[in-house]
Amino acid sequence: MSDDTIAHDETNELIASNKVEGTTVYDRDGEKLGTIHNFMVDKRTGQVDYAVLSFGGLFGLGSDYYPLPWDMLDYDEALGGYVVDLDQETLEQAPRYAASDEPSYDRAYGERVHGYYGIEYPA
Amino acid sequence: MSDDTIAHDETNELIASNKVEGTTVYDRDGEKLGTIHNFMVDKRTGQVDYAVLSFGGLFGLGSDYYPLPWDMLDYDEALGGYVVDLDQETLEQAPRYAASDEPSYDRAYGERVHGYYGIEYPA
Repeated sequence: MSDDTIAHDETNELIASNKVEGTTVYDRDGEKLGTIHNFMVDKRTGQVDYAVLSFGGLFGLGSDYYPLPWDMLDYDEALGGYVVDLDQETLEQAPRYAASDEPSYDRAYGERVHGYYGIEYPA
Repeated sequence: MSDDTIAHDETNELIASNKVEGTTVYDRDGEKLGTIHNFMVDKRTGQVDYAVLSFGGLFGLGSDYYPLPWDMLDYDEALGGYVVDLDQETLEQAPRYAASDEPSYDRAYGERVHGYYGIEYPA
């Protein structure tokens, strides 16, 4: 699969914040890992810091939410979704929360999430 | 009003993409201009390129949507919303669209929006 073969559609460069939910997330083998629940956006800079992956549960009920540092995600135009270098085993042990139990995304939590994936926490 | 007097709450640095709608947008005098309809996010970089302001209409019905280049917005912690250097007269002539008529955010449209506000379109 090559992006070069896909016509470059500038209208597809942007996604509306109210339409990110449900975007598919794949592993490097093209297997579906889950879907995007939401993006966590820095209010001041407008930069997405985490894409929150929804995984598990049935028809969205009882899903757990896994915050992934933005740098882990590559958008794949052909797949129409994100690819992450992550296998299911790693994901199963990863920091997660239930819908009813959203953490405060403070420094300690950010460091924990980044640390788990071996990514340096931004200063 | 000074941000220095407000306790710095790190949990409030991030906003979930599914909760941006309804955030108030003020002018420099602290008058409410409208509310955020959504953010338009670059799929690859994760950077918000536009905050779309909802303005006019009644109870959200018949509102028009005004894309504002992200750099126009300053987040004000004390107000709990965004401040833009924009008066109602300027806004009334600004590029806008109806809910049923979302434009393709292509280069031509981006240049038009940026041009209206006198902001250089990113290369």
